[in-house]
Amino acid sequence: MISIAKRLAKIFDSANVDAVVILNTNVQDSNFTYLTGISGGSFEGSMVIASRTGATLLISPLEYQVAKDKHPKEMKVVCMKSRKQTLGIIKKRLKGKTVGINGGFLPYNQYSRLKRLAQPKRIVDVSGAFSKARQIKDRDEIELIGIANNIVKKAFSKIEKCFEVGVTERFLARKFNELMTEYGADLPSFDTIVCFGANSSVPHHIPGNEKLTKNSFVLIDAGAKYMGYCSDVTRTFIFRPDKGSAKYKRMAKMYDTVKEAQSIALQSMKPGIKCELPHIRAADFINKAHGGKYKGLFIHGLGHSIGIDVHDLGPSLSPGQKEKMREGMVFSDEPGIYVSGFGGVRIEDDVLITKDGAEYL
Amino acid sequence: MISIAKRLAKIFDSANVDAVVILNTNVQDSNFTYLTGISGGSFEGSMVIASRTGATLLISPLEYQVAKDKHPKEMKVVCMKSRKQTLGIIKKRLKGKTVGINGGFLPYNQYSRLKRLAQPKRIVDVSGAFSKARQIKDRDEIELIGIANNIVKKAFSKIEKCFEVGVTERFLARKFNELMTEYGADLPSFDTIVCFGANSSVPHHIPGNEKLTKNSFVLIDAGAKYMGYCSDVTRTFIFRPDKGSAKYKRMAKMYDTVKEAQSIALQSMKPGIKCELPHIRAADFINKAHGGKYKGLFIHGLGHSIGIDVHDLGPSLSPGQKEKMREGMVFSDEPGIYVSGFGGVRIEDDVLITKDGAEYL
Repeated sequence: MISIAKRLAKIFDSANVDAVVILNTNVQDSNFTYLTGISGGSFEGSMVIASRTGATLLISPLEYQVAKDKHPKEMKVVCMKSRKQTLGIIKKRLKGKTVGINGGFLPYNQYSRLKRLAQPKRIVDVSGAFSKARQIKDRDEIELIGIANNIVKKAFSKIEKCFEVGVTERFLARKFNELMTEYGADLPSFDTIVCFGANSSVPHHIPGNEKLTKNSFVLIDAGAKYMGYCSDVTRTFIFRPDKGSAKYKRMAKMYDTVKEAQSIALQSMKPGIKCELPHIRAADFINKAHGGKYKGLFIHGLGHSIGIDVHDLGPSLSPGQKEKMREGMVFSDEPGIYVSGFGGVRIEDDVLITKDGAEYL
Repeated sequence: MISIAKRLAKIFDSANVDAVVILNTNVQDSNFTYLTGISGGSFEGSMVIASRTGATLLISPLEYQVAKDKHPKEMKVVCMKSRKQTLGIIKKRLKGKTVGINGGFLPYNQYSRLKRLAQPKRIVDVSGAFSKARQIKDRDEIELIGIANNIVKKAFSKIEKCFEVGVTERFLARKFNELMTEYGADLPSFDTIVCFGANSSVPHHIPGNEKLTKNSFVLIDAGAKYMGYCSDVTRTFIFRPDKGSAKYKRMAKMYDTVKEAQSIALQSMKPGIKCELPHIRAADFINKAHGGKYKGLFIHGLGHSIGIDVHDLGPSLSPGQKEKMREGMVFSDEPGIYVSGFGGVRIEDDVLITKDGAEYL
C-alpha cells in the first residue's frame, strides 16, 4: 500500500493551494493513480479532493466497492449517489478556497464547470507540482517499473522464434502483445511498434501488412503496463542476415554505432548533471562515427521520463533540457539512426538514476 | 478511406466557427481519429486545423511518414520541424478568427496557450458539434464496429474452455485479452473485467486473485479495439452449476430475468423514440419480476453510445435522456441485476439502430 501522506506532502510543499482536485473524464488522469494507488478500471467521472492532511475519493456507484477495497487507508471514500450530494461535497470543500488543478489534463469544459459550481477563490494550475513530485520515483514505484521491464524483456526473449519469411508487421505486433500478456502485463503501455526493412526509418511507424524478408531489419518498440506502471524497450534485429552482402554490413555498422551510443549515454548519467548531457554525448558519438555519415539523423531526443505514463511527467533527455538529473528518476535511453528508404536502428532500455550513477532496470 | 469532406461538413453545419483545432496531448483526442481516419500510434502533440473546405495535419517528425501514408487524400500534411514554423502556421490560420476547440478534451493549459499564441478573435467549444456528428455512424464506422464485435464474440466462444476450479480472475482476464489479440484486436477497448461469485455484484470490479469455485457466477465484460473502433460485450456464466442447489436456482432466475430484460429493451428500440425508453422498459420488467424482489438493483443506465470511444460521444440509454433515437446510432444494451454479497448478472450486446428498428451487431 502506497503512502498517500508522503505524496500529498510533496504536492503541497510545492503548490501554494488549500486543496487539489483531480478529476477523471472518460480518460483517467494519471495523477489519479499517483494519489490513490488504484490502477486499472475506468473510474470515469471519479475525483480526488485532497488537502495537505488528507484526501477524499468521490466514486461512482459502479466502482465504489472496488475503491473501498483498494484505496489507501488514509483516504476517505464517498459513493456519489446523486448530483446534488456530489455538488454539496464539492462546494463544502472548495468554496472560497484556492484550488489546484492539473491544467495539463483537466479539459477546458471541466475547468469552467468547476469554477462555476464550486465557487473557489481562485483556481491555480498545479501540474508543475505533480511533475516535480512524480519525477522522483519511490521504492514501490521502482519495483513496479522493474516488473513491467521484466515482462517486456521476457517477451523479447521469445519473439525471435516467431520471425519467419512472410509474416506481417501486424501479426508480430499481436504476437508480441500476446507474449506480454502471458508474462503478466495488464496491458501494453502503448501501441506496439513493429517495423520491417525501410519502415524502421520511421520512429513511430504503425505496423501494417508489410511482409518479412531475409536480410532485413526488424525493429520492435514495446512496453508493458503492470499495476499502473510502464516499461518501454526497443530492440532492432537483423533477420536471416546475408553476412556477405553490402546491405548487411551497412546494417551491422548502424547497429554497432547505436549500441555504443546507448552505452556512452548511460555512462554519462548520474545525479547532478544536466538532463541534456547524455543526449549530447550520444549524438556527438553518432555524428562523428563513420566520418560524419549519420550526422543529423538523430531526429528525436535520447529519452523521456517513465512511470505511470509511458511519456511521464518529468524532464526528457533532450538538447536544451537544463534540469538536473536526480536519484530516483527513471528514463528511457534510446538513441537511433534513421536512413530514409533504407532503414533504422533504435535500441532502448529503461534506466534508474542511482546515488552515484545509473543502471538499466 | 473515409470521406473527410462529409465529416467536416457535419461539424461546420452545427458549429458557427471559421476553424476547428484538434490537438493531441500524450493522450489522443478521439476526434483526431474521427477527422483523419488514422488509428493507433501516439501522435503526441500532433494537431488538425480544419476549415469547412479542408484540413491540415501538423505532425511530429517521428510520425510524419506514417501520417503521409495513411492520411485522407483531402488533407494536407505538414511536418513540424521547429516551434517557430508550427507557431507561424497556427497564427496564419487562426489569428483574428473564431476558433472551435473540443472543450471536452483540450486541457486547460493548452486552451490558454492557444489563446495566447494564436490570438484568435474568440475560442468556442464545439464538442457538441462533434457529439452530434459522431453519434450517427456511417457505413465505414458500422463495418469496423462490427469487426470489433466479431473479435470479442469469438473470444467469448473460446474462453469457457479456460474455466477451471482454482484459476484466478486476473488469469482469465489475461487469457481473454490473448484470445482477442489472436482474433485480430489491436488492443482491448478497455480493461477487461472478470468477476467470480459475489464480485459480480460490483459492475466495474477489477480482476484480482480470487479463485474460481464450482456453482459460481463468472461475469466477463470486455471489448476489442479494431482500426480505431470499439466493441463492448458482457456474458455471465454459471460455472459447474449444482442444479439441485437453492443457490443455483437463484442464480438461474437472475440470469433469465436479465436475458428477458435485454430482449425487451431491444424490441423497444427504433428511430424516433426517446433514448430513455429502453431503459425504462427493461427496468420496469426487472422491478416487477419476482414480486419486486430486485427493485432498485438496476444501478446503472441500460447502455451508452459506442464508436471510437467505448463510452462514445452521443446519448446514453439512461432515465431522463429525452434525446431521440436515430438510424445509425450504436448503443450497448446491458441490463443487470446486482445483489451485494451474492452476485450479479449483466448481459451486454451492441445494437445498431436501423431504419425501422434495431439489431445486434
